[in-house]
Amino acid sequence: MNAIVDPAAIARAALEEAARAARAAATILARAPRPTKDAALLAAAASLRARQDEILAANEADRAGAPDLSPAFKDRLTLNPARVEAMARGLEEVAALPDPVGRVIAEWTRPNGLVIRRVAQPIGVVGMIYESRPNVGADAAAICLKAGSPVILRGGKESLNSAAAIHACIVEGLREAGLPEACVQVAPNTDRAFVGAMLAAAGLIDLIIPRGGKGLVTRVMQEARVPVLAHAEGVNHTYVHAAADPAMTRSVLANAKMRRTGVCGATETLLIDRAVAPSLLPLLVGDLRALGCDFRADAAARAIVPELPPAADSDFSTEWLDAILNVAVVDGVESALEHIRLHGSEHTEAIITEDAAAAQEFLDGLASAVGLWNASTQFCDGGEFGFGAEIGIATGRLHARGPVGLEQLCTWRYHVIGTGQVRP
Amino acid sequence: MNAIVDPAAIARAALEEAARAARAAATILARAPRPTKDAALLAAAASLRARQDEILAANEADRAGAPDLSPAFKDRLTLNPARVEAMARGLEEVAALPDPVGRVIAEWTRPNGLVIRRVAQPIGVVGMIYESRPNVGADAAAICLKAGSPVILRGGKESLNSAAAIHACIVEGLREAGLPEACVQVAPNTDRAFVGAMLAAAGLIDLIIPRGGKGLVTRVMQEARVPVLAHAEGVNHTYVHAAADPAMTRSVLANAKMRRTGVCGATETLLIDRAVAPSLLPLLVGDLRALGCDFRADAAARAIVPELPPAADSDFSTEWLDAILNVAVVDGVESALEHIRLHGSEHTEAIITEDAAAAQEFLDGLASAVGLWNASTQFCDGGEFGFGAEIGIATGRLHARGPVGLEQLCTWRYHVIGTGQVRP
Repeated sequence: MNAIVDPAAIARAALEEAARAARAAATILARAPRPTKDAALLAAAASLRARQDEILAANEADRAGAPDLSPAFKDRLTLNPARVEAMARGLEEVAALPDPVGRVIAEWTRPNGLVIRRVAQPIGVVGMIYESRPNVGADAAAICLKAGSPVILRGGKESLNSAAAIHACIVEGLREAGLPEACVQVAPNTDRAFVGAMLAAAGLIDLIIPRGGKGLVTRVMQEARVPVLAHAEGVNHTYVHAAADPAMTRSVLANAKMRRTGVCGATETLLIDRAVAPSLLPLLVGDLRALGCDFRADAAARAIVPELPPAADSDFSTEWLDAILNVAVVDGVESALEHIRLHGSEHTEAIITEDAAAAQEFLDGLASAVGLWNASTQFCDGGEFGFGAEIGIATGRLHARGPVGLEQLCTWRYHVIGTGQVRP
Repeated sequence: MNAIVDPAAIARAALEEAARAARAAATILARAPRPTKDAALLAAAASLRARQDEILAANEADRAGAPDLSPAFKDRLTLNPARVEAMARGLEEVAALPDPVGRVIAEWTRPNGLVIRRVAQPIGVVGMIYESRPNVGADAAAICLKAGSPVILRGGKESLNSAAAIHACIVEGLREAGLPEACVQVAPNTDRAFVGAMLAAAGLIDLIIPRGGKGLVTRVMQEARVPVLAHAEGVNHTYVHAAADPAMTRSVLANAKMRRTGVCGATETLLIDRAVAPSLLPLLVGDLRALGCDFRADAAARAIVPELPPAADSDFSTEWLDAILNVAVVDGVESALEHIRLHGSEHTEAIITEDAAAAQEFLDGLASAVGLWNASTQFCDGGEFGFGAEIGIATGRLHARGPVGLEQLCTWRYHVIGTGQVRP
C-alpha cells in the first residue's frame, strides 16, 4: 500500500482543488445579475429557517465535542433559535443592498474622444479564516456572494458541524438560483495545515481575510503570500482637548469606552490636555468607575487622581477589550499625536474639542483609518457608516481602510470606449 | 577585531536605519502643503539642469564600469543632455499636477448627523526597486514626493553613480523647500541583500513597487512580506469581432502591435473571429508584415494564410515585447474570453467591433485591468489616461489597477465629524 501521510501535501491538494473550482465559479459569479445573487441569498435564508433544528443539533454536537471551553468562547460558538434567525435576517439584509459590481466609480473623456470608465469589479476568490463563530461564516458568505467573489470558509475546528450545517443551507440557495455551488465552499480539509495552504495560495486565492483574535491575525499577516485585508487590533484613543465641552466629553467618553468593551472600536486610552485635566479628569474617572471601569494611569494623571493604578509603558500599547482605560496627560494636539504614533495601531482615534482648527490639526496629523471629531470611537462600524454589512475593519495602508462593506470588497478595472483611436 | 561579515545582517541594519528616517520624514511630508512639495520639485529640476555635467560624468563612469552590456541595456542606462532635460521637465510636470493628498473622495451624512468624509492620504514609505535606468529613479522620486510618501530608491547596480548624482539634485530641492532629506533616499547599501531586506521590511516599508523585467518583478512578488503594487507582464490581446470595421481594424491593430513593441501595453496576440478571418486576416498580415512584424499562428489561421509560422502553445502566453504577433482564430466573444483567461495576464485587452452588445459582453467578461473597445491597447498609459505622470501599471487585484498615477499612489482614511454623538 502506498500510504502518503504528509498532512501539508494533503491540505495543499485539497486547497488547490477547492480553489480551482472557486476560480471557475468566479467567472460566472462575476457576471451574475443582481436578481440571481439576491435569489440565492433569499433562498439560503429560507433554508436556514427551514433547517433550524438540524443546525441547532449540529451546534449541540460541536459544543458536546469541546466541553472545556471558556464561557466567552462557548458563547461565541453557541447557536440558538434567535441567532439562527439573525443569520437568516443578515442574508436578507445583504440581498436588499445595492449590487456593488458594475458601478461606474468615475468616468471622464479625453481630448482624443476616448471615454474612460472606472468600473467596480469583484476581487476574485476570497479565503476567509475565522474562529469558532458559526455566524461569521454565514455573514462572510453573504457579503462575498453579493460582491461577486467566491469564498472558501475556514472556521475554527470546534465549529465544524455547525459550519457544515449552515453551508448546506447556503448551497441550497446557490442551487435554487442556478449559481455554481463552488461559489461558497467550506474547507474540505480540517487539518491546521489547510490554513497554511490557503496562505501560500498565490494565484489561486486573491485575498485572505482573517477575522479573530490577535494570534490568528498575526499568524496570517506574517505567513501570507496572498494579499491580506489586515484587521489589526484597535488600540484606540479619545483625546480630550483643552477646548473640549465638559458635558459632551463625559457622555462621549463613557460611550467610547463602556458601550461595549469587547469591540475593536472601543477606546483603550484617554489622552487629556494638561490644562483641563485637573477639573475634568476627576469627573471622567468618577463617571467611568460608576460604569465598572478600571484604569491604568501615567504619573501626571495620578498626581491629579492619586487612587488611579499606575500604567506600565506596555499598557499604552495594549488592546484591553475590557473595562480598563489607560490614561495619559498630554500637552496639546502635537503631543497627543505623538503618543498615538508611538502606541496606537492606526485604527480609530477621536478628538473632543470646540476648537475647529485644533480638530483639523488632529485629524490631518493622524495616519489612522478613522479619525472622529466630537463623536464616540464606537462609530467605527460598517453599519454606522451606512454600508449595511461589513466583513471587517481594515487597518492596512492599501486597498480599503476602515469598515469594509460591499463596495470595499470590490476592486476596479477600466473600460475605455473609442471610435478607432490610435496612439500617436 | 570583531569582524561581522554577514551581508544580509549588514543590509538589514542599513535598511532599518533608512526606513526609520523615512518614517520620521513621512509624518512631516504627509502634512506638507502643496507649495512646499512643488518648491522642492522645481528646485530639484533646476539643480538637475545646473549639475548636468556632473550627472553626465557620473553616467559616463557607470558605462565605463560595465562595458559588456547589451545595446538595449546600454541605451536604457545612458544619459545625455536631452535625457537630463527630460528628467528636469518631468519633475516640473509633476509639480504642475494637483495635490492628490487631502482630496475628499466621498462625503455623506448619516441620519444621526455624523458627516463622514473619505479623504486621500499618503500610503507611507515606498520602496522602489528598479533596473539600471537612471530616469526611473527621478520619476519615482517626483511622484512619491508629490503623493506625500517618502521613497527609498534601489536601482540597478550598473547605475549607482548616475543614481547618486541625480539623488544629490533631489536632496538639494528638498533642502531648499525645507523638507527632510530622508523624503528621498537611495539605497545606502549596494549589496543584493538590500533588496531582500526591503522585501522583508513589513512595518517599515508600506509598499514595494518593482519596475523592470519579468525576473525582477517575479522575485519581488514571490519574496515580499510587504504589500507590492504588482506590475506583471502584459500578454495583451486585440480581438477582432465578426462585426469589426475592416479599415478601423487595420489601423488600430497596426498601432496596437507596432507603434512601440517594447511597451507593456503592446498587443501580443491577435484573436480574430472565424467569420471574418478569411477576408480580413490576409490584409492584417500584409499590413503588419510591411511594418516588419513576424507571426506565430494557430492551425486555423495558417489554413487561411499558409505562410504564417506555426505557434507553440506557450507562444500564446509569451510577452514578446518585440515585432512578433501571435494569431488565433476564435468563435465569438465567449471563445475569445476563454482564450484570454487561459493565456492572458489580466493587463490590457481590446475588442474591435461595431456591435455594442458584443463589446459590452466582452468588456464585462474580462478580468483584466484595462479593456478597450475600438481603440489601441497602447493607450494603457498614465499619460493617455490623463493622470499626468505614472509610476507603473498595476495588474494585481487589490488597491489600484491599470495606470498608477498620483491619486492611485494614495490611500484613504475617514474623517467623521460629529456634535457629540454617542452610539446607541
